[in-house]
Amino acid sequence: MKVGVVGLGSMGFGIAVSLLRAGNEVWGEDINPAAVRRLQSQGASSGNLAQALPLLDALVVVVLNGAQTEEVLFGEAGSVAALRKGAVVICCVTVAPDFARQMAARCEWFGVLYLDAPISGGSVKAAAGKLSVMASGVPAAFAAAQPVLQATAEKVFDLGEHAGMGSAMKAVNQMLAGTHIAAMAEAITFGLTQGISAETFLKVIPDCAGTSWMLENRAPHIVAGNYTPHSAVDIWPKDLGIVLDAAQAAGFDAPLTTAALTQFKAASAMGLGREDDAAVAKVYARASGLSLPGEG
Amino acid sequence: MKVGVVGLGSMGFGIAVSLLRAGNEVWGEDINPAAVRRLQSQGASSGNLAQALPLLDALVVVVLNGAQTEEVLFGEAGSVAALRKGAVVICCVTVAPDFARQMAARCEWFGVLYLDAPISGGSVKAAAGKLSVMASGVPAAFAAAQPVLQATAEKVFDLGEHAGMGSAMKAVNQMLAGTHIAAMAEAITFGLTQGISAETFLKVIPDCAGTSWMLENRAPHIVAGNYTPHSAVDIWPKDLGIVLDAAQAAGFDAPLTTAALTQFKAASAMGLGREDDAAVAKVYARASGLSLPGEG
Repeated sequence: MKVGVVGLGSMGFGIAVSLLRAGNEVWGEDINPAAVRRLQSQGASSGNLAQALPLLDALVVVVLNGAQTEEVLFGEAGSVAALRKGAVVICCVTVAPDFARQMAARCEWFGVLYLDAPISGGSVKAAAGKLSVMASGVPAAFAAAQPVLQATAEKVFDLGEHAGMGSAMKAVNQMLAGTHIAAMAEAITFGLTQGISAETFLKVIPDCAGTSWMLENRAPHIVAGNYTPHSAVDIWPKDLGIVLDAAQAAGFDAPLTTAALTQFKAASAMGLGREDDAAVAKVYARASGLSLPGEG
Repeated sequence: MKVGVVGLGSMGFGIAVSLLRAGNEVWGEDINPAAVRRLQSQGASSGNLAQALPLLDALVVVVLNGAQTEEVLFGEAGSVAALRKGAVVICCVTVAPDFARQMAARCEWFGVLYLDAPISGGSVKAAAGKLSVMASGVPAAFAAAQPVLQATAEKVFDLGEHAGMGSAMKAVNQMLAGTHIAAMAEAITFGLTQGISAETFLKVIPDCAGTSWMLENRAPHIVAGNYTPHSAVDIWPKDLGIVLDAAQAAGFDAPLTTAALTQFKAASAMGLGREDDAAVAKVYARASGLSLPGEG
């Protein structure tokens, strides 16, 4: 397979490396030339992705948001017009379900297939080729994407033939994941007010009914006082914004998600947007004059 | 050991049965005489607990709330005055940390030990003697309670010598558990608005970062349309009320917990208080005109 990967951040780079490992010919593209060169040093083609577009079987898009996705696919140097008919765009970006439907329809107009394929699992699983993919698209899109999914995913959830359903499932997952991070932050800091240390919290809760995947993944960052971003605070205003836009359009009220979004926005406003998302605990700590581990 | 158990609901009955299984002599008491007789048929003493109080090594309290606890310990027929010096009260009720501290101090005045010992795990684990216990108390209270803990608990978290810390840890756990149930209800119903069925939600999310212990435990009730109470809606206005009272006293703002409490109160106001707590999903479904599995 000849595969292009646009967006070589921690997720996209891991996907590209997994594709190389599986024996595919890979072209990488990123606004950061160093990331492209680093991928080339791991075996990617030294050629320019833009020139290789007509040769590609699949184009994997792993950029930050919908606006970047639209620019990559249909902007001034839009890729889709240059792809051959029957090639597949695999969009791993977290976008609104409606946006995914629009992208699929516009690709179809060019005879290009579209797989709505948001991912879950983090950079370690991306590099290992063990992502979870929530995918939807026409059977031909699944078939064309199959070698890419096989190289990069441990689990592929087939959410049917309509683009948008993968993104809807991802929105549901992000709603829970973001809310659980904020709930963890709320509980670990509430515990501090009651004399329960962050260490004790982390020792006890994972064995109790109050645990969550996010709690077990993120609470250790707070206990260690280490906010090096695995996943940044600023992901959440974007992703929970997508969730709440879709909810509002459906006349659905989501008070817990709304409360979580408020906390992440507060963290961002405090200048913590680039820190690990566990830093949302600092919003609670500042508001109540508490010290988190590693602080004063 | 001679042990009394006050409160033979699903948790107390399981604890009493576990104590019998371990070879202890057990007296049971409940407002429901049938529960007492059922325990007697499983080997408990046929005598009256009130008359046995001076003989007891330990009195386990598994009633519904703080008011009942205070009545049992210090009310008109209060037990503590009748216990021998050095006997231990093991209080498994979810109560406010301050209330636990008061009970311990009043017991101490009578020369009776007090273990602040809220439990987690549900009725199945209670019957199997495999509860998690979040315990705090003076070393003599732990020592006196040891045979009871051994017979009833798989995990005992030692939260130190101060009564109240066990209850504080339980409050932190309930804060997370209640918030996660409401978050699950919010996400599963939001998914319905986006065309994601409850079945698909349950198939996908447990393999993704959005999962929680409560989600995996309660979402199946929604998918099955079965609201037979394992743990009832009405637990949560009580338990989250304890959490938010403690938070308010500490000047701590807990917006997600507050939002969750609002949803459980709404469920209760809709007449769902005695249903399984997963029925909080009906609050979301009613507000948006959605049908949950098993409904119209």
